[in-house]
Amino acid sequence: MSAGLMIGVGVGPGDPELLTLKAVRALARADVVAHFAKAGNTSNARTIAATHLRPGILELPLLYPITTEHPVSDPAYAGAIGQFFDEAAAAIAGHLQAGRVVAVLSEGDPLFFGSYMHVHVRLMGRFHTEVVPGVTAMSGCWSAARLPIVQGDDVLTVVPGTLQESELVRRLGQNEPTVIMKLGRNLPKVRRSLIATGRISDAFYVERGTMLAQKMMPLAEKSDDLAPYFAIVLVTNRWWQS
Amino acid sequence: MSAGLMIGVGVGPGDPELLTLKAVRALARADVVAHFAKAGNTSNARTIAATHLRPGILELPLLYPITTEHPVSDPAYAGAIGQFFDEAAAAIAGHLQAGRVVAVLSEGDPLFFGSYMHVHVRLMGRFHTEVVPGVTAMSGCWSAARLPIVQGDDVLTVVPGTLQESELVRRLGQNEPTVIMKLGRNLPKVRRSLIATGRISDAFYVERGTMLAQKMMPLAEKSDDLAPYFAIVLVTNRWWQS
Repeated sequence: MSAGLMIGVGVGPGDPELLTLKAVRALARADVVAHFAKAGNTSNARTIAATHLRPGILELPLLYPITTEHPVSDPAYAGAIGQFFDEAAAAIAGHLQAGRVVAVLSEGDPLFFGSYMHVHVRLMGRFHTEVVPGVTAMSGCWSAARLPIVQGDDVLTVVPGTLQESELVRRLGQNEPTVIMKLGRNLPKVRRSLIATGRISDAFYVERGTMLAQKMMPLAEKSDDLAPYFAIVLVTNRWWQS
Repeated sequence: MSAGLMIGVGVGPGDPELLTLKAVRALARADVVAHFAKAGNTSNARTIAATHLRPGILELPLLYPITTEHPVSDPAYAGAIGQFFDEAAAAIAGHLQAGRVVAVLSEGDPLFFGSYMHVHVRLMGRFHTEVVPGVTAMSGCWSAARLPIVQGDDVLTVVPGTLQESELVRRLGQNEPTVIMKLGRNLPKVRRSLIATGRISDAFYVERGTMLAQKMMPLAEKSDDLAPYFAIVLVTNRWWQS
C-alpha cells in the first residue's frame, strides 16, 4: 500500500461547534480536503468545517451529476451515480498514490447514509483508511427538540421517507420510536401514514436541525407540506408520560 | 424559572477526542458537573471528559443503587431505579435553584439510551435545559470497524440484546441492517438468533469501541460467549458486495 491515507471525517449535523476534537485534528493534518456537493452548490459539509481548514489547503470538490431527469429507481440514475463515485474514487486515489493525507468531509456520520461510504468501499482494499465518527443529523434534531427518543429496552427504527406508503404504515403501526429521514416531497405521504396509524400527535418535525435556519414544531401544527430533503420527523412513544 | 441551567452533555463513545467543541465549551462554563456511576465504580463518562473539567469544579456523583438482586422486569427494580432518578433530579434541582449551570455527563448521546434523559424528563418543565448531542456508541463501533452500515433507502433497526429470542429472530429475519446493543450475558441468545436467521456471517462484534481496550472481530470467529454490557453486534446487508 502507498503511504497515502484517506480519512472519512464526520462534521456533524450543521452547528460548526458539533465537530469533534478528532475531526479538527484530522483537518489539521490533511494535505487535501475533498467534499461532495451538487453541481453549482457549495458543499454543506465544507461550510460546516470551513473555520478548521488550513489556509491554502488543496481542495477537491466532488460534484454530483445533475440527475433530476431520472427518478432514483431508474437504472439510468444508478448508472450515472455509480460512474460518479468511480470517478470520485479515482480522483482521491491519485492523491493517495502520491502519499497525501486526504480528508473526505461528510455531513453527520460518514458511514451512516453518507456519500463518503461509496468512495470508502471502492478504495478500502487498496489504501489505508480511517473513519472519524460524527454526530448524526438525527441526534442533532432530537437534541434541538429536547425529545428523549429511546430508553430502556426500546427498539429504534430509522426509515427513509422514500419508502412506499404501505411500508411506512406497516412500520409505524408497530408503535415504536421511529425516525423518518429524507422528507422533501415525501412529507404528504409521511403525514398520511402517521394519521393512518394514529401517531400524528406523537410526531415532531425538525428542519435543518442545529443550523442557524433551524425550524421545528409538532408535525400536526405544520400547515403546509413544504420540507427540504434535510428535514426529519421524530416519532416518540412518549414513554416519559406513561 | 430560576437562572439555573441544566446541560445534558454527550461525551461520545469513549475516545476523549470524540468530544465535540460544544461539549468542551459546556464543561468550561459549568459550575457543577454531575455524572452517573455504579456505586463503588468511577463514572465512565467522567473518565472520558476528565481532561476538560476545570480544576476545583464542583462534582455531583450520582450513584446507581445496587440492583443486582432484582431482574430488570421485577417491579422492585423499577421502584428502586425510579426512586434513584427522583433523588438524582432533586440533587441537581438544588444547584439549579441556586442559579448554577449544571453539566450532566452522558456517554454517547444524552437522549439515546442515556441516563441523562431520566433527570431531563423530571426537570424539563421547571428549569432551563440544553442538550449537547454526542457521537453514539454505535457510530463509534461501526467507524472503528470501518463498516458502512446504511446507505440509500436502507432501514436501520437498533435493538437491545435483552429482547426475547423469538423477537430477535423475527427482526433479524427481515434481512435489514441491524445494530444489537446491550450484549453482556445476552450474547448466547443473540448468537443463536443470528444463526437461526442465516445472518451470523454478516455479524461483526465490537467491544468497548473507540476505547483503549477496544476489541473487535467477526462474531463467527469469537470463540467464547463473554461480552461486557458495552459491546455491540453490527449486522450489515453487505450492500457494497452486491
